[in-house]
Amino acid sequence: MTAELICVGTELLLGNILNTNAAFISEKCAMLGLSMYYQSVVGDNQGRLEELLNTARHRSDVIILCGGLGPTQDDLTKETAAKVMGKPLTEDAQAHKDIEEFMARRGRSITENNWKQAMVPEGCKVLYNPNGTAPGIIMEEGGTCVILLPGPPNELVPMFEEQVCPYLQDRQPDIICSKMVKLCGIGESSAETKIIDLIEQQTNPTVAPYAKTGEVHLRITAKAESEEEAYRMIVPVEEELQKRFGSLIYTDDPQVTLEMAVHELLKKHNLTVTTAESCTGGLVAGRLINVPGISAYLREGYITYSNEAKEKLLGVLPETLRLHGAVSPQTAEEMAAGGAKAAGADLCIAVTGIAGPDGGTEEKPVGLVYMSCYCRGKLYTEKNQYTGSRSKIREYSVASALTLLRKAILSTFGEVDVCG
Amino acid sequence: MTAELICVGTELLLGNILNTNAAFISEKCAMLGLSMYYQSVVGDNQGRLEELLNTARHRSDVIILCGGLGPTQDDLTKETAAKVMGKPLTEDAQAHKDIEEFMARRGRSITENNWKQAMVPEGCKVLYNPNGTAPGIIMEEGGTCVILLPGPPNELVPMFEEQVCPYLQDRQPDIICSKMVKLCGIGESSAETKIIDLIEQQTNPTVAPYAKTGEVHLRITAKAESEEEAYRMIVPVEEELQKRFGSLIYTDDPQVTLEMAVHELLKKHNLTVTTAESCTGGLVAGRLINVPGISAYLREGYITYSNEAKEKLLGVLPETLRLHGAVSPQTAEEMAAGGAKAAGADLCIAVTGIAGPDGGTEEKPVGLVYMSCYCRGKLYTEKNQYTGSRSKIREYSVASALTLLRKAILSTFGEVDVCG
Repeated sequence: MTAELICVGTELLLGNILNTNAAFISEKCAMLGLSMYYQSVVGDNQGRLEELLNTARHRSDVIILCGGLGPTQDDLTKETAAKVMGKPLTEDAQAHKDIEEFMARRGRSITENNWKQAMVPEGCKVLYNPNGTAPGIIMEEGGTCVILLPGPPNELVPMFEEQVCPYLQDRQPDIICSKMVKLCGIGESSAETKIIDLIEQQTNPTVAPYAKTGEVHLRITAKAESEEEAYRMIVPVEEELQKRFGSLIYTDDPQVTLEMAVHELLKKHNLTVTTAESCTGGLVAGRLINVPGISAYLREGYITYSNEAKEKLLGVLPETLRLHGAVSPQTAEEMAAGGAKAAGADLCIAVTGIAGPDGGTEEKPVGLVYMSCYCRGKLYTEKNQYTGSRSKIREYSVASALTLLRKAILSTFGEVDVCG
Repeated sequence: MTAELICVGTELLLGNILNTNAAFISEKCAMLGLSMYYQSVVGDNQGRLEELLNTARHRSDVIILCGGLGPTQDDLTKETAAKVMGKPLTEDAQAHKDIEEFMARRGRSITENNWKQAMVPEGCKVLYNPNGTAPGIIMEEGGTCVILLPGPPNELVPMFEEQVCPYLQDRQPDIICSKMVKLCGIGESSAETKIIDLIEQQTNPTVAPYAKTGEVHLRITAKAESEEEAYRMIVPVEEELQKRFGSLIYTDDPQVTLEMAVHELLKKHNLTVTTAESCTGGLVAGRLINVPGISAYLREGYITYSNEAKEKLLGVLPETLRLHGAVSPQTAEEMAAGGAKAAGADLCIAVTGIAGPDGGTEEKPVGLVYMSCYCRGKLYTEKNQYTGSRSKIREYSVASALTLLRKAILSTFGEVDVCG
């Protein structure tokens, strides 16, 4: 079954807001096994919306429209969709009552145009809206289903989850399941080269790579007659990916982030960690603290942007800074060892580099970043050379630092040799 | 002149990522005076992209495509667009060289599929890409202009600003100028309420609000026959905004961020600053260190996630933590004063709160965040209550912390009373 999304709103065409509804609805449809091939955005314009709806009804089974159900003159989505589907509008008594009650609860007075929102296409299913005055609508006609939803996410999200999901689940014959395998420490093209044969010969299941900053995610998707069958089909593909990528895979759970995977390792080995950051200036700790519950393992961190702070807080030797400079493997290692000592932690991840745009030299160009991870007496040190803006260099450094932290734990505790 | 946007990427149709490119490009097109009536998203599918391009070229003057220029098999945007526009692909020598150099700088080996990215449609304008391996492309044919851009925002954004904007500006007959006035410390609906009369009666110039995390940006846009005339029309509107928002306005320069505005104030008054962060865990320092040149004013920062770290690094009293708890105005103030003392800094911004999802109580719910700024002996303390996810609460806290830091400097040095 195919689905198509049409978001209505001039504010989207002007770039005033991010289209979070599109991401939400797309993900839900994918989970429900609907194939979405098109998404569109149009303004509050009857002619263009009509044209788009006419195109959509000839190519998609389910058309989801969001936005343009408000009480004002410009809100035309319902009127236009009803016209295209050949349904006259009539007042829905329950919707009328709901609007009355909603406005009374908020202490707001009702204006004449509010009653426009109680009008619904004849014979439709009305999706009552406890969070606003615009009811949602489902219309069916000749095998096509048109679903209208209010634009505000706090109204759309619960309406979709509670009313639209069960409706669509009932209509969907195919079962589609997917699994996400996440890698760190490898680039998108290297990852793809390693599995190009799988990608080229695939039909069902399929594998698709997604590039993220410092990570690559691989989604395996299978279509079958039952959920069990779909997951059974995914197993050998996932095993093959395991064989090819080994410990570069940090999770196969879509909810797990790299920092959560690091947190799991800290928990497993009961290790405390601290951070000693120069160019990343707190962002490595900031990402680790994304994880609820990290407080048992990360108690403190140091931002040592100046040489004085590196000496004072981490005990980096003045001679090291003088001889090798702040951006050097020697300084990174002293930061890591000194940070662990200062915090009394098992681990310390240290980062020092030149984020630019100034400060680069021929020998040490902008984007040169050294990082070192101290782990129970051992040091794991890496040199990286990034390109791009100051913020991009810093973002990549953060991802690499978390990757190195993970490598250091895995290597120290002999889980696998991923540093080779 | 009309523009249309087509974003290519299965990850958008699956809802894996938010379409930030669409918001960015739409806003830029609006600034350039282009009318955008349609946005679409399609997957990496040749047939559907071809169909969409054929529709688009009959209704829009400029078609902007983003995504699908990668080195892999699924990346089909360039091949499909070239086919629709009737242009064969040939290798671009400069693009070939750029790819070689880019990969060498990163120390990555080139795989065969990388060379696909050096192929460009005959007779096109190539937009060289210092931040990645996919060059952008501009093709013109029969009055239609097709612009292809790489999907990763760190490549797309600079390419659009530096190469596409000047190109589109040249093709656009109307002169459209705009100015961005940025506010902090006020919500979108309060900001809009203060200027609803201006928005309702406007034709030319216009004022449009854009909500950002913890900030509101107001764009004033004027259309005229010359640039001078357009800017002359903007002046009285900006003066009116100045009158209504006063020192809530931190800049009228589109390039200046809130952290840059704070940096300017530190420079002006020659003040050093440090950070003492609990729930934000390094992100406040991380944002300040976005500013090149901040090193003269921010030398070190403290991440004190545990009570012990608050005592050890900042000198917060055990009694304060016992009596009032870690999330309290008392603790925030001792963190701020103690941080400034430890670092020998003029200022210290301290943040302590409950980012959730656990750890909330009836009295201190998730989202409660106290922040205090020490500034040369004075303390400025604020209580905030946020809603949303852990990461949303932390993001808002960072924006509020920078806003408070700015307020503290302005108030201490008598520039204006923005704390009233």
